[in-house]
Amino acid sequence: MSLPSRHALVPFVSVENMMRLVLHIGPERMMVELAQTIEDDFRRWPEFDKTPRVASHSDIGVIELMPTSDGRHYGFKYVNGHPANTRQGLQTVTAFGLLADVATGYPILLSEMTVLTALRTAATSAMAAKWLAPRDARVMAIIGNGAQAEFQALAIKALCNIDEVRLFDIDTAATRKCVANLAGRGLRVVACATAEDAILGAQIITTCTADKQYATILTDNMVGGGVHINAVGGDCPGKTELHRDILIRAGIFVEYPPQTRVEGEIQQLDPDHPVTELWQVIAGEAPGRTDAAQVTLFDSVGFAIEDFSALRYLHQALPGTDFYQELDMIADPDDPRDLFGMLCRAEASAKVA
Amino acid sequence: MSLPSRHALVPFVSVENMMRLVLHIGPERMMVELAQTIEDDFRRWPEFDKTPRVASHSDIGVIELMPTSDGRHYGFKYVNGHPANTRQGLQTVTAFGLLADVATGYPILLSEMTVLTALRTAATSAMAAKWLAPRDARVMAIIGNGAQAEFQALAIKALCNIDEVRLFDIDTAATRKCVANLAGRGLRVVACATAEDAILGAQIITTCTADKQYATILTDNMVGGGVHINAVGGDCPGKTELHRDILIRAGIFVEYPPQTRVEGEIQQLDPDHPVTELWQVIAGEAPGRTDAAQVTLFDSVGFAIEDFSALRYLHQALPGTDFYQELDMIADPDDPRDLFGMLCRAEASAKVA
Repeated sequence: MSLPSRHALVPFVSVENMMRLVLHIGPERMMVELAQTIEDDFRRWPEFDKTPRVASHSDIGVIELMPTSDGRHYGFKYVNGHPANTRQGLQTVTAFGLLADVATGYPILLSEMTVLTALRTAATSAMAAKWLAPRDARVMAIIGNGAQAEFQALAIKALCNIDEVRLFDIDTAATRKCVANLAGRGLRVVACATAEDAILGAQIITTCTADKQYATILTDNMVGGGVHINAVGGDCPGKTELHRDILIRAGIFVEYPPQTRVEGEIQQLDPDHPVTELWQVIAGEAPGRTDAAQVTLFDSVGFAIEDFSALRYLHQALPGTDFYQELDMIADPDDPRDLFGMLCRAEASAKVA
Repeated sequence: MSLPSRHALVPFVSVENMMRLVLHIGPERMMVELAQTIEDDFRRWPEFDKTPRVASHSDIGVIELMPTSDGRHYGFKYVNGHPANTRQGLQTVTAFGLLADVATGYPILLSEMTVLTALRTAATSAMAAKWLAPRDARVMAIIGNGAQAEFQALAIKALCNIDEVRLFDIDTAATRKCVANLAGRGLRVVACATAEDAILGAQIITTCTADKQYATILTDNMVGGGVHINAVGGDCPGKTELHRDILIRAGIFVEYPPQTRVEGEIQQLDPDHPVTELWQVIAGEAPGRTDAAQVTLFDSVGFAIEDFSALRYLHQALPGTDFYQELDMIADPDDPRDLFGMLCRAEASAKVA
C-alpha cells in the first residue's frame, strides 16, 4: 500500500510521551505556561462556542464529552468518572482529547489527557489563586492528598510564591505519598493530623477530595477571613466539599455558571445566588478580591475551554520534538470521491507485493 | 520507563488496517455482517441512551460528536462535514470513533471511521431496503456517483439480490469512476445520461448526492408506484434531495425522529407529519410496506446507534488478528492516587537508562 499523505496523519501524544514532555519542560514551568495559555483564552471568553458537557450516566459512573471551539480550532475531551475504579486498581478519571482545524474539520492532534488534565486543573487553580488570593500568601493547605494534590502544590508554588504546604487526608497513606513526592522541590511540607491543623495559618486552601461520602471537608468556623479557597473536588451533582455557610459569606468565582450551578459547590445555593465568572476578572470586567478580609472561593468544576487551552498549548509545543507519533487516522484517497477506489488499489498493491 | 499495563493500551484501527480488514473479510460480506449487527441493535432500540448529535457549526462546515450507549458499551463518533474540502483535495466527511466499557469508563477501541462509515451507511440502506423494498426487486438506480455509490451498490446487491445497477451523476467522471470500480463484481452496470433514464425499471432508488445546490434530484412525476427510495444524501439542515410531493405520498421511515426532522428530507414537512421508526418495523411493532404499489422512503441521515453497531462489530472482529495496533493512551499508575509518583518514577528510570 502507498504511504498516506500528510493530511491523513494525526500527531498522537501517548502517556509515555506526555510524561517525557512534562519532565523535559519541567512540571512547574509547564503549569505556568499552561496557566498563561488558559488565561489568554479566558480573556477572549466571548469568542468561544460554549456548551455544558454531554454526559452519559450509568449506575456506577459517567462518561462525558466536553467540546468547545474558538472558530479557528475545535477541541473536545473524553473523560470518565468512576469512583469505584480504584478498588480494581484503575483510575477514577481517565481522559483523552482531540484538537481539529475548524476550516477543514480535520483532526490535528490526539492526546492522552489524564496527565494533561491533572496539570491543567492545577494550573487553573493556581491562575485563580493568582487573581484572588491575598498578595502576601505564603502558606497553603491541601485537604485531600490524592492524584491532584502534588500538582496543586507545585502550580500554586510556581504562580503564587507559596513556600509552605500543609497536608491532610483521612487516609494517612495518601499524605505520606504526597510528602514523599514533594520532597526536594523547594516547599516546606507539613503533614497534619486534622483538617483544622492543616489550614492553620494558610491563606490558600485547596480541597481536592475524591470520595462522595465526605461532604463537608470545611465547616464555616474553620475558615478565617482573608483566605482563598480552591474547591476542586466537588465537581458533579451530589458531590460537594464545603459547608453551605462558607458559600454564603464568600465571594464566589466560577468558570461557566450553567455547568457550575449543576456540578459545583453552588448546587447547594439558590439558582440565582450571585457569582462572578472568573474570565470577567481576568478581562477586567468584574472585580476580584474586594478587601483583605474577604473569603474568596473558586468553585472549580473543570470547563472545556481549559482543556482546549491545554491541547492548544500541546499542539504548539510538539513541532521539532519527538514527543509524538503519527497516526494514520484519516482516509485520504487521491480523488476524495473515490473512497472505494482507494480500497480497490489497496487490494491491487497487496496482490503485487 | 516500565511497560504500560493491559488497561493502559487501547486497540487502534488505522485507515490502512481498516482497508486490510475490509479486503480480508470482503466488502460485501462485511456489509452483510454489519447490517446484521445494526439490525440486532435496532431490535433492542429502547435499551439505548439516545441523543441528537452535538454539533459545532462554522460558516463553512460542521463538526459533530455522536454518542450513544446500551448500558454495557458507550460509543461515539467524531465526524465533520465540509462541502468545500474537495476543492483542496480533502474529504468532505472524515470520521473516527471510540468504544468504551461503561463499567469502568475505559476506552476499549479507537478506530478510523471514514471507511467504516461508508460501509455502515450502505449496510443501513441495504437493511432498510431488505425490509421495505418489493421482494422481486432486481434493478436499482443510484443518483449521485460519489464516495458512497459503490458501497450502496454492493450492499444492496448482497442483501437484496439486485443484479443490475443504473448510474447517473451530473458529473460524468463520477459515473465513469463508479462503473470502473464496480466492474467484475457480479452486477450489470449501466451508465445513464439522465436521472430519468437511470430510474427506468428500478425498484430501488438510492439518492446520494453531495452538493447542497441540487436540491431536487427526484421530482414527483419521475417516481412510479411500488419503488423503494433510500434518500442518503440529504442529511443536514437546508440540504434535501427529493421534491416535497414525493414525501407527501410516500410511506416514510426514519432512524431517530428528533434528528431526522431537523436534518432529513422531512424537514420539508410539518413537524407532526407521520413517520415510522425503522427499528419498529424490525422489532415487529409497526408495519413496513403495506402494499405493492406503495412508495416507501427511508429518509436516512445516519444515527449514532449505527456507528455504535459498527464499532461493536469491529471490536469483536479484531481479537486474534493483526488489523490493529495498541496505543498507550490511558495513564495507569500502580497506585491510582499516585499520578505524580508515576511521573517521578518515569524521571528516575530515565536517569538510570
